[in-house]
Amino acid sequence: MVKRVAVILSGCGVYDGTEIHEASAVLVHLSRAGAKVQMFAPNADQMHVVNHCEGKPTEEKRNILQESARIARGDVTDLVKLNESAFDAVIIPGGFGAAKNLCDWAVKSKNCAVQPDIEKLIKAFHKAGKPLGMCCISPVLAAKILPGCELTVGHDKECDKWPYAQTAGAVREMGCKHVNTDVDKAHVDAKNKLVTTCAFMCNAPVHQVFDGIGVMVSETLKLA
Amino acid sequence: MVKRVAVILSGCGVYDGTEIHEASAVLVHLSRAGAKVQMFAPNADQMHVVNHCEGKPTEEKRNILQESARIARGDVTDLVKLNESAFDAVIIPGGFGAAKNLCDWAVKSKNCAVQPDIEKLIKAFHKAGKPLGMCCISPVLAAKILPGCELTVGHDKECDKWPYAQTAGAVREMGCKHVNTDVDKAHVDAKNKLVTTCAFMCNAPVHQVFDGIGVMVSETLKLA
Repeated sequence: MVKRVAVILSGCGVYDGTEIHEASAVLVHLSRAGAKVQMFAPNADQMHVVNHCEGKPTEEKRNILQESARIARGDVTDLVKLNESAFDAVIIPGGFGAAKNLCDWAVKSKNCAVQPDIEKLIKAFHKAGKPLGMCCISPVLAAKILPGCELTVGHDKECDKWPYAQTAGAVREMGCKHVNTDVDKAHVDAKNKLVTTCAFMCNAPVHQVFDGIGVMVSETLKLA
Repeated sequence: MVKRVAVILSGCGVYDGTEIHEASAVLVHLSRAGAKVQMFAPNADQMHVVNHCEGKPTEEKRNILQESARIARGDVTDLVKLNESAFDAVIIPGGFGAAKNLCDWAVKSKNCAVQPDIEKLIKAFHKAGKPLGMCCISPVLAAKILPGCELTVGHDKECDKWPYAQTAGAVREMGCKHVNTDVDKAHVDAKNKLVTTCAFMCNAPVHQVFDGIGVMVSETLKLA
């Protein structure tokens, strides 16, 4: 049976959209596994447009769906059209887009609100017993919607390798169990069918991020 | 000895910049091989900004270097600062950016002019006996600068799998030897130290494109 996977994008570029290498790794691993993929993104303005040379927001406006189409080579659908019954699993890559355009974690941390279509989607897949794969910062979406779930955003002790380690403490305060997990591995919460890997939450070479996402994709498909 | 590789970007997105999955595959394979990578892009306006949902140019202006920084996670240098003596090899991913921003092949085909810094770069690496790795449409840069070289842009008979097969005929008319080569392989012109793979010139699953780029990267590093 071919597994049907919805991949949710949130723009194109680490500082205001989907992290490009995370999305590409997800697609490569899903393709190798023979999964049938459809990409979705919200049809709305991005929270920010960031000049990626300077790391600073500009005055520009860009549309999340149109920018996501750069990753999707044009083949991306408005998120409002996603019908949960047509898919066996959903995967949400990271990047600040997940924390700015799919929820407002980037400005409100654990007090964030999740974009309503994303909230509906996560609840529908969870209720139907269909797996959710997430990486980098996108597991905070699960932390908000599925309190008590187990997940990883990497390690909880800040150092050069783990510059965003305080995120682990924040998801614990939200009632989740955070499990320290290296970049080339993934954590499986079998009860909630939630599979997470830290990706670029770790300051690691890109091939290790690629491999960790490979484990996340493979474990997600096993649960589907 | 760690191999030092310059990767040349031309924006971010298949229709007006660097093809995202080709660039990501290049970086993953170089990372796994332990190469030291520095990314470069021209600091100039893109020829086009294309709405990737519709495939049509808009009125917007975007800067090639700033958009390339989305792929480079901020770490990209103005192409004018590239010093050939600091690198053992150069790799140029494809996408329409290579045919719009690094030369004007997209509008002039075999009568194209190559951007002067790119022309200088290719000539300098070639003269120094340092390998050039290219994929998708970027081999047309070599076809223009190194007449008589051997390369691949895929296959020369148009069909669903090879929608851009007429490109093979065009590079032959420019005096090159075109070698039909499948998507998961690369062609090595040992005399010119030019390594090419067709990538998305083939209508293939993304993991096959990833694997062909892996062969291109590996053969380029062997020649370095």
